[in-house]
Amino acid sequence: MNSEPVIFLTNDDSYLSKGFRAAVALASEFGHVIAIAPDRVQSGMSQAITINSPLFMREVQRDDKVEIYAFSGTPVDCAKIAFDHIFRSRKVDLVLSGINHGSNAAVNVMYSGTMGAAIEGSFYGVPSIGLSLDDHDPDADFDGAVKYGREIIAKVLAAAEKLPRPLCLNVNVPRCEAKDIQGIRMCRQTRGFWREEFYARKDPHGRDYYWLTGAFQNMEPDAEDTDEWALSHRYVAVVPVQVDMTDYRMLSEMRDIIK
Amino acid sequence: MNSEPVIFLTNDDSYLSKGFRAAVALASEFGHVIAIAPDRVQSGMSQAITINSPLFMREVQRDDKVEIYAFSGTPVDCAKIAFDHIFRSRKVDLVLSGINHGSNAAVNVMYSGTMGAAIEGSFYGVPSIGLSLDDHDPDADFDGAVKYGREIIAKVLAAAEKLPRPLCLNVNVPRCEAKDIQGIRMCRQTRGFWREEFYARKDPHGRDYYWLTGAFQNMEPDAEDTDEWALSHRYVAVVPVQVDMTDYRMLSEMRDIIK
Repeated sequence: MNSEPVIFLTNDDSYLSKGFRAAVALASEFGHVIAIAPDRVQSGMSQAITINSPLFMREVQRDDKVEIYAFSGTPVDCAKIAFDHIFRSRKVDLVLSGINHGSNAAVNVMYSGTMGAAIEGSFYGVPSIGLSLDDHDPDADFDGAVKYGREIIAKVLAAAEKLPRPLCLNVNVPRCEAKDIQGIRMCRQTRGFWREEFYARKDPHGRDYYWLTGAFQNMEPDAEDTDEWALSHRYVAVVPVQVDMTDYRMLSEMRDIIK
Repeated sequence: MNSEPVIFLTNDDSYLSKGFRAAVALASEFGHVIAIAPDRVQSGMSQAITINSPLFMREVQRDDKVEIYAFSGTPVDCAKIAFDHIFRSRKVDLVLSGINHGSNAAVNVMYSGTMGAAIEGSFYGVPSIGLSLDDHDPDADFDGAVKYGREIIAKVLAAAEKLPRPLCLNVNVPRCEAKDIQGIRMCRQTRGFWREEFYARKDPHGRDYYWLTGAFQNMEPDAEDTDEWALSHRYVAVVPVQVDMTDYRMLSEMRDIIK
């Protein structure tokens, strides 16, 4: 690259999260950072978009290296306004979404606002990385995520010109000290789903309320090529993500039944 | 089936929409309907879940054939509370999500709350159908969607025992009179994405605001096996949907680069 790389940064925990601050510092090692991040927590917002209300943006920080804007939309709205309104023809070299407080391995890729934004960013032909740490603590230790995030960003930027598009990586880092991480593994998405337990109580006015909580059910805990296996064995799990959700195996079977 | 089938119904346009009412009537032709639907419009909510706030439910209608509850959560929250709290061990024979006002073909499957709920429902081992009409009009004509929805529901229920799980169908119906629909086609998801134009104005207080609007870019308009092609040629498009988003072609290529 001749000019300084431009990195677009977003997340779903808002521009106020510790993981976001870690990502700003990490991304600015590689070039000029333009961040548009939610102005409040947008965890679990998936690929959601805001159709029925106007959105507002305000500048939070602006200096030679870093521009940060807080946006009232979802993570995907942040990516959309970045590419379709702010950047337009300006060249962007990398999308980084995170660093998320909490794993986005397995089917979490579908619920995650962090991955929603990373996927959306990849639609614009820019290599995109969703970076998540398997720790929901607001004060989590991001040293391992920064260390391995740095290695992966460097490799993706170096190989960017020869890599096909769209390119989106779901990177999940185990919760342990950086020195205890065993390395990086390319993985496939683990099969599994969440089973919820609704915390059901009465509010101060006597109305029933429900609060979502649950546990991930891993359908293949012993499969060594999956992202959950890698995380639980202290590897950084990297899954390349694509968005064709067609179930090709079912296509011919259903053809016999439907018509 | 020995006892009357139970159909779980939800959507993303809320229990007040015309499409939902059409779905209640359609589903009740097949058995007992239990509907838990959003209490307000939740279009574009994708696979979003509500993590950080309590949720409220209220009964809207209850008679021998139909129970309807309005829920304050997202479409996926509706499916989760249905299966993990309301039904639990009760047998459910079909999930129906819709009838949506607007197409969920192509990449819309990812943004759609209707499809989010249909996908979530399929995780519980129940055949699941997301049914959408390619017409956003609140007063749209659902005759064609009801006619072909009826045919597809009947075929899925009849074949349910021998069909593999999870089973989720994304059914999109063209906007035309029912008599002009050419039939049903099993399809794959069209490649393409949205390009947005943000409607940018000033609010009454002088602040800039942005409002999302855009157009779908079809990357393969001539591919006759795609859902967009089917819709534009007045066929009902049926895509079987799965949730492994791993890009298997990229897996080995990235292995050379990342490690």
